[in-house]
Amino acid sequence: MLVQMNDLAWSTTEESIAKSALKTAYDREIDALMTEVRHQVEEIEHIGDLWRLHDFLSARRHDVDGKYDDDLESILFGFARLVKEGWLKMTDLDGLTKEKLAKIGALARM
Amino acid sequence: MLVQMNDLAWSTTEESIAKSALKTAYDREIDALMTEVRHQVEEIEHIGDLWRLHDFLSARRHDVDGKYDDDLESILFGFARLVKEGWLKMTDLDGLTKEKLAKIGALARM
Repeated sequence: MLVQMNDLAWSTTEESIAKSALKTAYDREIDALMTEVRHQVEEIEHIGDLWRLHDFLSARRHDVDGKYDDDLESILFGFARLVKEGWLKMTDLDGLTKEKLAKIGALARM
Repeated sequence: MLVQMNDLAWSTTEESIAKSALKTAYDREIDALMTEVRHQVEEIEHIGDLWRLHDFLSARRHDVDGKYDDDLESILFGFARLVKEGWLKMTDLDGLTKEKLAKIGALARM
């Protein structure tokens, strides 16, 4: 499936919606991550549990660092991933053009 | 300062004392580390605090992984470091030859 991403124009309003949606998803994911870490820490009994927490944080940090790029060229892919992972609802993106929403929806179903 | 480390003979009893001392220091350090991590987790409010915990764990893991090598060729250096850091007392090494204890003591003061 080929999704044509070039030459999408972004109005100022859309840019603002996009950034706000990204922030919403980020806050949701980080809240969930902090809850998960607190839970994991309660379960720590042995050193192996601590290193498992460290591995978990390494993976999540790498993941999160790569996922919240607000570059408009690639942001539809980012949104699609966040929708797929449940951190973003399509309704959080209300106000983007139908064309963009259709692309995000198509990518999220891939 | 040059410390001659070669050709030190280890009796079976000394080997057993060395391994037991290493285990004692390791358990002390890990207990302290777990207490510190639980404390740091209580203080976590923002994502930056979580990544700081991650950095802390990365550094401590690297440090601990390199420090508890039970290879007899290098164990006097390991003991010296653990004494210097406070994880091991010289009395935990009672039973090693005077020569070995003197070397550990000298290295720990370097």
